[in-house]
Formats: sequence, C-alpha cells, structure tokens
Amino acid sequence: MTLRIGLDLFGGDHAPACNLEGLEQALASDPDLHITVFGDENHVRDYLSHKAWSDRVSVVHAPDKIEMGDSPMRAVASKPQSSIITGLKHLKAGQIDGFASAGNTGAIFGASVIILGGVLESVRPCLMTFVPRPEVRDAIILDIGANADSKPENLLDFALLGEAYARHVMHVEKPRVALINIGEEAEKGNELTKAAYKLFAQEQRFHFVGNAEPDRLFRDIADVYVCNGFTGNIILKLSETLIELVRRLGFSHPFLDRFNYENQGGSPVLGVNGAVVIGHGISNARAIANMVLLTRDIARARLHEKMKEAFHQV
Amino acid sequence: MTLRIGLDLFGGDHAPACNLEGLEQALASDPDLHITVFGDENHVRDYLSHKAWSDRVSVVHAPDKIEMGDSPMRAVASKPQSSIITGLKHLKAGQIDGFASAGNTGAIFGASVIILGGVLESVRPCLMTFVPRPEVRDAIILDIGANADSKPENLLDFALLGEAYARHVMHVEKPRVALINIGEEAEKGNELTKAAYKLFAQEQRFHFVGNAEPDRLFRDIADVYVCNGFTGNIILKLSETLIELVRRLGFSHPFLDRFNYENQGGSPVLGVNGAVVIGHGISNARAIANMVLLTRDIARARLHEKMKEAFHQV
Repeated sequence: MTLRIGLDLFGGDHAPACNLEGLEQALASDPDLHITVFGDENHVRDYLSHKAWSDRVSVVHAPDKIEMGDSPMRAVASKPQSSIITGLKHLKAGQIDGFASAGNTGAIFGASVIILGGVLESVRPCLMTFVPRPEVRDAIILDIGANADSKPENLLDFALLGEAYARHVMHVEKPRVALINIGEEAEKGNELTKAAYKLFAQEQRFHFVGNAEPDRLFRDIADVYVCNGFTGNIILKLSETLIELVRRLGFSHPFLDRFNYENQGGSPVLGVNGAVVIGHGISNARAIANMVLLTRDIARARLHEKMKEAFHQV
Repeated sequence: MTLRIGLDLFGGDHAPACNLEGLEQALASDPDLHITVFGDENHVRDYLSHKAWSDRVSVVHAPDKIEMGDSPMRAVASKPQSSIITGLKHLKAGQIDGFASAGNTGAIFGASVIILGGVLESVRPCLMTFVPRPEVRDAIILDIGANADSKPENLLDFALLGEAYARHVMHVEKPRVALINIGEEAEKGNELTKAAYKLFAQEQRFHFVGNAEPDRLFRDIADVYVCNGFTGNIILKLSETLIELVRRLGFSHPFLDRFNYENQGGSPVLGVNGAVVIGHGISNARAIANMVLLTRDIARARLHEKMKEAFHQV
C-alpha cells in the first residue's frame, strides 16, 4: 500500500538541507512511500531535478515559515501560507495520509487540534514519546507536555490513546497501562493521581497494572505509562539530561543510543483526526527520515480511527 | 561546642547493628560529638560496655518500634514509647540538639511537625535533598515529597527555607533560587508554577534566577531548586533510577558516587523547630554516620532560628 506522507521542508534547525537528505533516506528505505514536501518550492526543484526518484515526491508551495519563537496560536491564525498549516490542511482534506514536521512544537500541536479536530469532541489530545528499556522493547509515556494541567478524566483519555497506540502501531497484544505516581499503593500520590487511580481501576477498556514510581519506568511492567503533561515533560527532559551527562563523563553503550532523538524520529500527536509527528528541533537527516517512517507507521495503522473505537468499546 | 545528637536505634533495614557501627564512626570523626541513642537499651548496653568512648553516649530506653508499614499518623498517636516519638520529644524539650532516624519517612516527618511545630504558624514544612553537579558543589532541591499538592505560597515557603539552609548550613553567601519548570519563560508551565513565578519575581528576601528546566538542574545556575513535592519526588527517584541503571550497564565514575545515599546521609526536614534528618531505609553504617554528622551541622547552624528570621526580614 502506497502511503503519502507530508514533510515540512522548513521545520528544524538544519532545514532545508537535512530535511531533503532525510527525505531521500526515507524513500530509500521504503519503496512504497510517497512524500509530499511543504515549503518554498524554489528550494526543492533544483535538488529534485537530479534525482532518479523524483517522481515519488510532490511539492506543495507554502513559502511562509512559522518560526521557533512564534506564539503558537498567533502563528496558526496569521500564517495560513506556512508549511505547517498548509500541510495539516492537506492532511485534513485527505490529500496526504500523515504529516511530519520538526518545527515549533506548540504551533504544530495547536494547529493539529484546530485543523484536524479531536477524535471525539470530549477527548484531550496529547503528545507521547518512547521509553527505552534494557533488553525489552520500548514502552511509551504520555502526556509529555501538551497539557500542563490535567484533570483525572484527561489522564483516562491519555490511557485510552496510549493503549490504542501500543496495540495498533506497536502491535502489543494486550497493552499494560500504568499510572506514574510517587508511591505504589492506590492511596498514594497527589489529588490528581489518587482520583485517576480510581477511574483507571474500574476501567474495562484497558488492562491497568497500577501505579508506577520512576524506578518501574525502565522495567518491563507496563507498555503505556500515563501522567500529566507537566510530569511527563520533567521525566523526558531529566532523562535526556542525565543520559547526556553520563555520556559527557565518557560512558557509551548501545542502550544510551536508544534515547537518541534521531533513532526515535519524533513525538506523535495522539487524539487528533490524522497521523501527525513532531520531530526534535535539532533533527539531522537520520532523525528526519525516522520521523517520516514513524508517521507512515501511524498512518498505515489508521490510528485515529482505532482511537475512536477505543473510546466507544464497552 | 559539644552538640548532642539523638540517634534512632531502630530506624533502617540493618538496625540495630549498622546504627551502632555508624554511631561509632560518627564519634570517631568528631571528638566534640555526644550521641543519645533512642531504642531498646538491652540492645545497647552490652555493646557500649566494651567501648572506650562509651561516656560520650547516652541511652534513653524507648522499646517501641514504628515499623515501615505503619500508617504515619496512627503510629504517632499509638506508639508514644517508640524511639522516634521519644527522640523528638527530647529534642522539643532541649535535651538533645538534633535527631536523626533512618525509619519510616512519613512517620518521622509527621511526628516532627506535630511535636516540634513549624517555625511559623503559616509555614509548610518540607523535605530536601542534595543535587550533585559535576565540578561544582551540590545544590539542594525541595520539596521532595512531603507535600504532594502545594499552593504557590507553599513554594514560596520552600524557597525561603531552602535559601536559609544554603546560606547557614552550606555557607553559600548569596544563594540563587530557581523554580523547577517545563519552560524557561515566565509564562511557561502549569497554573502552580506560573503563579509561583509571579510571587518569586517580586521577592526581596532571596535572589530569584528564574525558571529551570531539568537540564539546568545539574549546571551551576542556582543553589536552591524549588518545586512541588510530587515533582521533586519524581526528580529524586528518576535520577536514582537512571544512575543505578547506568551503573548496572557497567559505568563507574566518582560523579555517580555523589548520588549515593550513604554519602549524603539523609534528607533534612525543613521548617520545623529543630534539626531533624531522615535517612534512607537501606542505610549502612557509613550512611548512619553521615546522617548523624549532617544533623550536627544543621543543629550547629541553629537553622530553625535562622529560618524564622528569613521569613521576617523585609
């Protein structure tokens, strides 16, 4: 099945050079892939004209740029010709199957919610990322920062969204869901996690394995770790910081490499009507390629449809 | 100046053997120290009778034990003869200058607040720990779990308590205070950190250096890092977990050793009328000795009096 993935030419600190190189790597690794590039077509035409695979690439001229410093909401309104807004509108219209950008996270997330809409009216979309564990496959953690203040019902949304991701994109048969907390027992934690625990414990729609303190994050006790966006962002950035610190002290190990943004590709936006992945601002060509391939996997799983079903099952 | 530090004979997984060994190490490293042991005197008398330094040790018979599984509040009420309650009452009465225990954290913290009281009626006591940084001295972080749900004014308390600790116990001349957050700018974060930022920014009583994302935790940009107890506990446990994980992968480095609980001694209780330190449950003799010496440092600084002054200065 040919999937058509949209790529933001501008997103990322090393755009457009790394984006074009990443595009080429992605096409090389999947002969069925088609990529639609959103950006200034003058930057692309010359590059493409020399390539044998140029018929597998479309270009949509979207010359306006949303910069990293732009206020997300203002950018969405004031830059309709930007690569991000144009790409998401193409996704909404069904002209592409997924969209990937290493640009301004807030703007991409906000525009995804506005343009694509949530999978259900009541669902709070969020951002997820991967948790490498020694010797076993990655788990996922969400929300990692889209919602700095969440209610217990929002955490329930995140659980259902993450469970659907693990099941349909990662092909985990019966994903185990854990709640990030500062104690293992049901009555431990803050007001948010105590209330969320009660909601999770009575759920039939997913397999809840209880609270997880951070020491259980890197052990194979769950596939999906759920938390408020503030907590998730602290966990993500503290992990990156400590891994980087240990590297600078001279330690290298294949396990540490699994934390690298370039291997992971990016953070999927979950809960919106379409496959959207946000890459790291410092993405190199390899990261861009992996971001495109991750978007393809999510699009292929038709995840947003599966998510709708996840909320409706009894 | 001779300081009299109380030591809980029962606290810790390796009590009483490691506690007695730790007591001996602490006495050996400070010839001015006097230690009062709280516990079953039958466990101590024999051990002491053979020691040349036994005149530097007092024993208060407190045969009841608060176990790790005991509910903190119930234990405080129902076990008045316990080593923890008896020790804290001696501290309250001025019969010792500080109290150290590696027992049940919740019970020691709760009993400290009840028996000793807060340094001011309005102040919320909390727990702190140390943040090792490469090449520079440790910073401190608080709260690390005593208050899972804090208000902006509570974070302001933590800032003042931590500032006083850095100034009077660590002898930092003009401690820099940072607010842990998920963004550097004033308007970033959740409702709590946004409101706390406003309070901190208008403070004259300490030097506020702004928000700190986790990557700034291990750099020399602040001496005191302030956060809600839920966040602090996540940061503490995630750091321990990742350092331990890296160790298991085969990396050893002096910097990693600075994260060891045995080198740090324990977590001071800040904001109560007296010097109290809570040690790690798995404390060995070295950890016990360092816990006693840390308690001595806090007692010597007369920190609780300095904290009262910190709140009153203009």
